[in-house]
Amino acid sequence: MALRNVTGARCTICGKVVPAGPETTTCPHCGGILDIEYDYDYIRAEIAKKPLAERPDPTMWRYMEFLPVEGIGKRPRLRVGGSPLYLADALGRVLGIRELYIKDDGQNPTASLKDRASAMAVVKAEEAGRATIACSSTGNAASSLAGNAAAAGLSTFIFVPSRAPKGKVAQLMMFGATVILVEGSYEDTFRISAEAIDRWGWYNRNAAINPYLMEGKKTVSLEIAEQLGFKMPDYVAVSVGDGCTIGGVCKGFKDLYGAGLIDRLPRIISVQASGCCPINTAAAAGTMEWTPQPENTLADSIAVGVPRNPVKALRAISESNGVVVNVSDDEIMAAMRLLGANAGVFAEPAGAAGTAGVKKAVELGLIEKDASVVSIVTGNGLKDVNNAIRAAGEPMSIKPRMDALLEAFDAKGIKVPK
Amino acid sequence: MALRNVTGARCTICGKVVPAGPETTTCPHCGGILDIEYDYDYIRAEIAKKPLAERPDPTMWRYMEFLPVEGIGKRPRLRVGGSPLYLADALGRVLGIRELYIKDDGQNPTASLKDRASAMAVVKAEEAGRATIACSSTGNAASSLAGNAAAAGLSTFIFVPSRAPKGKVAQLMMFGATVILVEGSYEDTFRISAEAIDRWGWYNRNAAINPYLMEGKKTVSLEIAEQLGFKMPDYVAVSVGDGCTIGGVCKGFKDLYGAGLIDRLPRIISVQASGCCPINTAAAAGTMEWTPQPENTLADSIAVGVPRNPVKALRAISESNGVVVNVSDDEIMAAMRLLGANAGVFAEPAGAAGTAGVKKAVELGLIEKDASVVSIVTGNGLKDVNNAIRAAGEPMSIKPRMDALLEAFDAKGIKVPK
Repeated sequence: MALRNVTGARCTICGKVVPAGPETTTCPHCGGILDIEYDYDYIRAEIAKKPLAERPDPTMWRYMEFLPVEGIGKRPRLRVGGSPLYLADALGRVLGIRELYIKDDGQNPTASLKDRASAMAVVKAEEAGRATIACSSTGNAASSLAGNAAAAGLSTFIFVPSRAPKGKVAQLMMFGATVILVEGSYEDTFRISAEAIDRWGWYNRNAAINPYLMEGKKTVSLEIAEQLGFKMPDYVAVSVGDGCTIGGVCKGFKDLYGAGLIDRLPRIISVQASGCCPINTAAAAGTMEWTPQPENTLADSIAVGVPRNPVKALRAISESNGVVVNVSDDEIMAAMRLLGANAGVFAEPAGAAGTAGVKKAVELGLIEKDASVVSIVTGNGLKDVNNAIRAAGEPMSIKPRMDALLEAFDAKGIKVPK
Repeated sequence: MALRNVTGARCTICGKVVPAGPETTTCPHCGGILDIEYDYDYIRAEIAKKPLAERPDPTMWRYMEFLPVEGIGKRPRLRVGGSPLYLADALGRVLGIRELYIKDDGQNPTASLKDRASAMAVVKAEEAGRATIACSSTGNAASSLAGNAAAAGLSTFIFVPSRAPKGKVAQLMMFGATVILVEGSYEDTFRISAEAIDRWGWYNRNAAINPYLMEGKKTVSLEIAEQLGFKMPDYVAVSVGDGCTIGGVCKGFKDLYGAGLIDRLPRIISVQASGCCPINTAAAAGTMEWTPQPENTLADSIAVGVPRNPVKALRAISESNGVVVNVSDDEIMAAMRLLGANAGVFAEPAGAAGTAGVKKAVELGLIEKDASVVSIVTGNGLKDVNNAIRAAGEPMSIKPRMDALLEAFDAKGIKVPK
């Protein structure tokens, strides 16, 4: 049955529009990635009838008119979305930004923004009558799919590169997924997963193939807008790997703009790791032609040398009149410490990269000090404890005696406040 | 200034009532732990004036009339509370329980129920004009204090036993706490922290000393009640270490009962690890006299051989006509797997212990199969990845080729569904 709010799926390459069914993947004409399109007049009318402020549902599904589903059915769902947006004055002062907000999407059920996409994938798989979903992932998409599928009673096959942090692998195993560690790059992992999905006909949750995933991800922008009373910040910073998340962030704002809920798009700050920045390199050169790069960064979630969704990512940057900035691993680790100590937010490396990018963009004069900025933290630091320890250092260790404590304080140069 | 809703603090040992100020710790007469008391008529009248359902604040502070503070001031706060309550039918069937709910308090900002107590501690420290807070903890109280204090701009000194899982220590370091690993038991850690707090006059966030912490923890029960429409379940299961959490859970229901919002207390299922169960041992023997025990369990958060709050814990069990059940480490790990695969909830060992207890209580005939049960998950599994891997096992690992995948499926006996 056709959805009342969805008009179709438009190919990002050839521009043709095809009907949007639950199993729709890439463009049947040219293989391009599809983009779901909406009837904005319909959305506007529905929102006017039932204002958002009066809706009790705190999850991503409160924005039902903006989503390519009729409902979410009767199966159990994790509570995805509704993550906090913190006004972070102390951190803003450190970064030299007048008005800084942290959107902590590490507070999702499996501790990353990817829960928004996976929750959507599970609903669409059910619509398609499938009981098994598969994906390849650097880690977060995988653990979110495994968790959201487990809650709904669906089974999962998950392909992750063997470099994935232990925390993410532990989540997968615990959610009962069939987990295949692939001894190779993310590119290798993606390829073997595609072959397996093809062979066994599983529902495909690879974000660059399945156009609905981005529709889940965009809810982070719908929330940011609502949490700010639909008054747009000047900038929204987000870290970029595959390109799907930045695409989703931009799509959310575009849909809000289309439906008349906001009067302009914020400029998107696209942050990549210096050691792996194919999308930012292309954007900086003003071209859609990107070149593969090695995956040299500790931020595993954005270590993507061959991005699967460069088109949407590059368009998000150009359509929002965006800013690109690359950050080193040291800058990422510094941002982790700043987020923790000044805002009480514990981010994984890729999660802190956005904030590292804001800091650097100010230093480079790419953005104004009197700007308002929302920095999205895409994942929780507990997912990657080894890198957190590496960033934060080891604690002092003492025998349980006062003299040992005094000695340790002395050695560390700690002056004890009253 | 005296709070309008608080009538005083009653000693749990000698019964004397003293005024409740921000720096109130233990009983000035006998050293007993204090219990904050309320004017229930006042609370009832306030709730009637401003019904809970109409309050937009989704955090623990929505229950302001039930809390020993006038307000939460202007400093930034993490979003504590408002954690999801999942109806977990699939898991209920596995456990043989008619109506099972999982209250996932691992969804708090620092990923444990302890955020509720720490958020309270930070507000009370500010009321007392203190800029430094200290505590000792098996881990979660510490990381929650460090995170909540960092958000508010307060500094922290944290004492943890050296056995604390890396994830928790990483959080502490990242939140900018001064962390002291103590080479000894939790008892040793508690003692040296008490000495240091005494010496330097820091604000004391040790839950067994500071009566306000439990007032924060009790908000988990206020939420459970509201989420169930104030219709009480037959049982609420929670894991028990120090005794403060079960005390808080019971206090929440008692306050709700006092204010006339619920018509009975649920029976509390007190779950301890078989390898460390001093409170349950005393409760089972019908005595308030407990005996120290060794700390033999992988569930670090409840590995407390010398509980600091046995009085409130034992009273919570007796006043609620509770049930006691001890679970082995194997049973805890099995519960971790069941929660993950059947409910999409990833719990740390102590977080899953409550659910392990529900399973065992059914098996032993201690609770009825047609009962309704809420099982509280007190902490997220990402806090203790090593034990999660131990519980869930390692994934298969392959070269990125289809023949390797087929071979691995064969070796594991995996039959691939369509």
